[in-house]
Amino acid sequence: MKAVRVHAYKQDPQIDDIPEPTLQGPLDVIVKVGGAGVCRTDLHIVDGDWAAIQNPNLPYVIGHENAGWVHAVGDAVTNVKVGDTVILHPQPSCGLCLACRAGRDMQCTGDAFFPGLSNNDGGMAEYLRTSARACVKLNPDTNPADVAALADAGITAYHAVRKAVPHLYPGTTAVVQGAGGLGHIGIQALAALTATKIIVVDKNPAALELAKKIGADETVVADGNHVEAVQELTGGGATVTFDFVAEQGAELDAWAMTGPAGYTFVLGYGGQFTAPTLDFVAGEKNVIGNIVGTYNDLAELMVLAQAGKVTLHTVQYPLDRALDALHDLDAGKVRGRAILVP
Amino acid sequence: MKAVRVHAYKQDPQIDDIPEPTLQGPLDVIVKVGGAGVCRTDLHIVDGDWAAIQNPNLPYVIGHENAGWVHAVGDAVTNVKVGDTVILHPQPSCGLCLACRAGRDMQCTGDAFFPGLSNNDGGMAEYLRTSARACVKLNPDTNPADVAALADAGITAYHAVRKAVPHLYPGTTAVVQGAGGLGHIGIQALAALTATKIIVVDKNPAALELAKKIGADETVVADGNHVEAVQELTGGGATVTFDFVAEQGAELDAWAMTGPAGYTFVLGYGGQFTAPTLDFVAGEKNVIGNIVGTYNDLAELMVLAQAGKVTLHTVQYPLDRALDALHDLDAGKVRGRAILVP
Amino acid sequence: MKAVRVHAYKQDPQIDDIPEPTLQGPLDVIVKVGGAGVCRTDLHIVDGDWAAIQNPNLPYVIGHENAGWVHAVGDAVTNVKVGDTVILHPQPSCGLCLACRAGRDMQCTGDAFFPGLSNNDGGMAEYLRTSARACVKLNPDTNPADVAALADAGITAYHAVRKAVPHLYPGTTAVVQGAGGLGHIGIQALAALTATKIIVVDKNPAALELAKKIGADETVVADGNHVEAVQELTGGGATVTFDFVAEQGAELDAWAMTGPAGYTFVLGYGGQFTAPTLDFVAGEKNVIGNIVGTYNDLAELMVLAQAGKVTLHTVQYPLDRALDALHDLDAGKVRGRAILVP
Amino acid sequence: MKAVRVHAYKQDPQIDDIPEPTLQGPLDVIVKVGGAGVCRTDLHIVDGDWAAIQNPNLPYVIGHENAGWVHAVGDAVTNVKVGDTVILHPQPSCGLCLACRAGRDMQCTGDAFFPGLSNNDGGMAEYLRTSARACVKLNPDTNPADVAALADAGITAYHAVRKAVPHLYPGTTAVVQGAGGLGHIGIQALAALTATKIIVVDKNPAALELAKKIGADETVVADGNHVEAVQELTGGGATVTFDFVAEQGAELDAWAMTGPAGYTFVLGYGGQFTAPTLDFVAGEKNVIGNIVGTYNDLAELMVLAQAGKVTLHTVQYPLDRALDALHDLDAGKVRGRAILVP
Repeated sequence: MKAVRVHAYKQDPQIDDIPEPTLQGPLDVIVKVGGAGVCRTDLHIVDGDWAAIQNPNLPYVIGHENAGWVHAVGDAVTNVKVGDTVILHPQPSCGLCLACRAGRDMQCTGDAFFPGLSNNDGGMAEYLRTSARACVKLNPDTNPADVAALADAGITAYHAVRKAVPHLYPGTTAVVQGAGGLGHIGIQALAALTATKIIVVDKNPAALELAKKIGADETVVADGNHVEAVQELTGGGATVTFDFVAEQGAELDAWAMTGPAGYTFVLGYGGQFTAPTLDFVAGEKNVIGNIVGTYNDLAELMVLAQAGKVTLHTVQYPLDRALDALHDLDAGKVRGRAILVP
Repeated sequence: MKAVRVHAYKQDPQIDDIPEPTLQGPLDVIVKVGGAGVCRTDLHIVDGDWAAIQNPNLPYVIGHENAGWVHAVGDAVTNVKVGDTVILHPQPSCGLCLACRAGRDMQCTGDAFFPGLSNNDGGMAEYLRTSARACVKLNPDTNPADVAALADAGITAYHAVRKAVPHLYPGTTAVVQGAGGLGHIGIQALAALTATKIIVVDKNPAALELAKKIGADETVVADGNHVEAVQELTGGGATVTFDFVAEQGAELDAWAMTGPAGYTFVLGYGGQFTAPTLDFVAGEKNVIGNIVGTYNDLAELMVLAQAGKVTLHTVQYPLDRALDALHDLDAGKVRGRAILVP
Repeated sequence: MKAVRVHAYKQDPQIDDIPEPTLQGPLDVIVKVGGAGVCRTDLHIVDGDWAAIQNPNLPYVIGHENAGWVHAVGDAVTNVKVGDTVILHPQPSCGLCLACRAGRDMQCTGDAFFPGLSNNDGGMAEYLRTSARACVKLNPDTNPADVAALADAGITAYHAVRKAVPHLYPGTTAVVQGAGGLGHIGIQALAALTATKIIVVDKNPAALELAKKIGADETVVADGNHVEAVQELTGGGATVTFDFVAEQGAELDAWAMTGPAGYTFVLGYGGQFTAPTLDFVAGEKNVIGNIVGTYNDLAELMVLAQAGKVTLHTVQYPLDRALDALHDLDAGKVRGRAILVP
Repeated sequence: MKAVRVHAYKQDPQIDDIPEPTLQGPLDVIVKVGGAGVCRTDLHIVDGDWAAIQNPNLPYVIGHENAGWVHAVGDAVTNVKVGDTVILHPQPSCGLCLACRAGRDMQCTGDAFFPGLSNNDGGMAEYLRTSARACVKLNPDTNPADVAALADAGITAYHAVRKAVPHLYPGTTAVVQGAGGLGHIGIQALAALTATKIIVVDKNPAALELAKKIGADETVVADGNHVEAVQELTGGGATVTFDFVAEQGAELDAWAMTGPAGYTFVLGYGGQFTAPTLDFVAGEKNVIGNIVGTYNDLAELMVLAQAGKVTLHTVQYPLDRALDALHDLDAGKVRGRAILVP
């Protein structure tokens, strides 16, 4: 089959012809890929930024945002069968450790892996090996390419919003900093799950225009006066600030935009958070970490997607034009999410 | 191997010599039984009370409260290995449905089963077949016979107490109605997990004596004036009433002992709960159902047990004296919990 | 001033000319009534159904759903000033007991009262005496008559929905039984606060038509087959059933429509709830009581109302036509809520 | 009456003879002081560290940890009467804003004040003016001097522990960094409210000795290897770390001792918290702010104190030896908490 493989860091991946993956364990599932999202993390992998952390054997197949159709299943698989349309949680987990048993998949202390990132082939290929525990079954008529990007970008935004729901009752305010791919899903999830006042902050006026159409109550251009603008719109700081940027100073803005007893949810990364411990005491303020989401988060998000409450802007590229997709993403030419299709 | 099997309802089980169970699936685990609790439910099974609900093929082995040592494991088992000391959650669950993925094992909508109750051989035998998902690993030097009864009676009481913790802050009151096997574990769990005032109600003064030693702050003899006595001790009704009886009128007493905005937790069964809907409105009172507990409940309870915070009174019977144990239980001659040992 | 007073039970109230109320304590507030909702409870009061419970001295002024403008304030009032537009929580509470200090106003153990129901004059009059703790300040241009019915009917529905939010994540199902005044607010609150699937059950097809327009995803005519219909639509029972009827058998239907580990929220009253204790155990099902709501519930609901997310259908009657309003309500001629205006 | 007043910053306070305070509003309460805690914050006030923040008119009476007997009450006071033994929440709040109405006293947006810190005379005097909303009634035979220090130091520790309870089920680990006055109360509160494993870290071996007696399961000397020691004891980091120090690098140790999906609770202050935003993402870790506690926290803590579950080590000084108490505290000569008594 065709597959997009990294052979060496800081070089373009190659489209190789390699053997199809095969079942290796009783809970394994082989999926025929119908859509594979192209993510900024893929650029980072190619640059070697993840080499030290994940240390995969090269060459290997990238692609961690996948949906498709079940092609083969192991002996112990009971939740899906050949032919089912599925979207895949990006991190198959062990299902047996205490974290998995509590529904906290991302804290799995067993043999979890992350195809396309850890030392396991990913989904920019015709077929992918994953596990039964990663498969969320979809309506049969769903086009995998339409939803694939929800598998990683989507649940990351959804997971954070879901955790914040108890804080966001009517009368509260939520700030979304960064109205890119994740931010747009966050805005839609906030509008679907809460009646909070949604304020979106971004440097790009066009992104703010779109934000208004999908649920933002107010928008603020990040022009240097945005912290003050948010302070005024919120009457002294937001109840929850979702920081989808978290670098280049945004991480400090997020904290400054958060009000007394409020929460800064960190989703982006790259920057250094810093604040006097007195800030935590005097204001009883909080910083909340977030990593991807759980299997059930993905299942819930698919309910929203299939009800039309969360939609994605995507641009499709045939699998053999994967390099164009990566280059376009790198050059800032992709509007919405690039999706590789068979 | 030797095994206690029901051949026909309303007749004594027989101790048969049958083949040892074998691995049937990749997540299967064969356990050498070290202790099997004898439960009132076993008497009900023998009487045929569960025949219509579970409809097992006779003869079959009873025993649903088990601990022992891992004897053999299937190909996909990663959490235990041969020789490990384990206690077994009574209901192996699928691990793949949304309920399992949220940590709500007892609401499994997959292929859960309940050895010794459903159409699967139980633990009153030398060996038992269960699944990796049922195994909680213990300190190697734990004697399975000492803890086996926590596998069912224990987590049932613990699960309810654990759910009630948010309601039971200092200054609140908790009533434990029924200071038998489950009630005693409930009292100890309340004392370990909360600082609520614990009031124990039972007909039996000796049970109340023991209750005082293991954590009860107050005891009330169920002599017909107990509802009034509890009303007075609680200043108008308990914050939470745990009803371990729930039959013969106790289920109405439990409700009457529960105060405004309070909770009646139902654990026993047999009776008919009834109350005017106005009671729910005027008092904003609640009734909470409870069934067994989750895998993580059992793991947590074992932490308490191994720290000496929850202990069990047990009486051991060799496996081939199982009928004596059942007869003694039926005759009210067992103090604490009867445990069959190899 | 003019006031609608009950002089004797089972007789029409009279419109009397009585002195205006005056400030009696430092937290007292006198409100010029701008709208007073006419509630079925008023008919019950006239019938004497509340006489034994509240035992007011006759004659007294009825009316417990009020909004208007602040006319005078006591020395210790800091949250509102003369001229403010306000809606009134129906039960002024003490603010000093542990329940009030935890935000649970309706469980106030201090000197709470309920004007128009307890032995205190209500709002079917030109002026009403209440307390600072009852006043929720509104946008100055709000017409009190448009929102008055949210003061009691509204927060009762909102309070229950708000409590249920943690259970109603995407993929769950909520049943609203009874699409009358409270039910309609419940449907709108569910649509505003959750992405659950909303199923509305009522005998009246016209009420179901309206339900669809304000947020119902599915409707079911209560024709005797509705329990089965709901079972089918929910795949075995709802996550939460809101029972706004709770009499004439509806209270048993509500329980039957509730699925495993689900919740029946009781809001109506009149019937007798009954179920085997085994139902609570085997299904881990729950019954949740609900009474009116808190001050903060009312404040939150007004945020929804002022954002247009919850609207009310009302019919205005001048205060001196109060008897017509009561008679029309009794005769089933009122569509929406009857509101008395100055 | 005698009162300890600050006349100028960086100078010793003076013991003056001034008029007794008088009732000024309907909710005012005059308390005859029975015990006034001497806190490190008092030294900071004398040094002028709070001048810019609180800006009180000098001279003024310090002392913000008070208990005593009710001496006079305003017209609207219903929760206490003359002669009652009371402990005082340090920050009387308005009771009317949304934060107060939700039980979040410390976030009061109304006319809250903080006697002895804000521009209001404190409790190092014979009498103190406070409000009904600050008074928690005690058993009449309680000696105010025995409990006064719970009014501020106590609820600060209790509030944080109370918030952490849902995270600290059996099998989890809690680290208490700093086993001083607040830390000791924190340890006792943890032992009373949870069954978590309590690990105490301090530089002072004597403080660790005491910690063991009051509930610590493990102790670690803060000798530079303590982060590694805690990592090992916890198997990779604590579930919750309570940082009572939060300066001089301890704030970074606290974060390093916190495990995946764990929480650092900040209680001390003075240092600068800093961490890469990637830490929040990769580990899904959180930082939680804490300020004093609510009225209900104080009421709950008094239940624990009166049950003997939380005790304080105190050293009494007569009011006219207040300067000795302040000097001894400054010189590190006070074991436990210094309390001024009449």
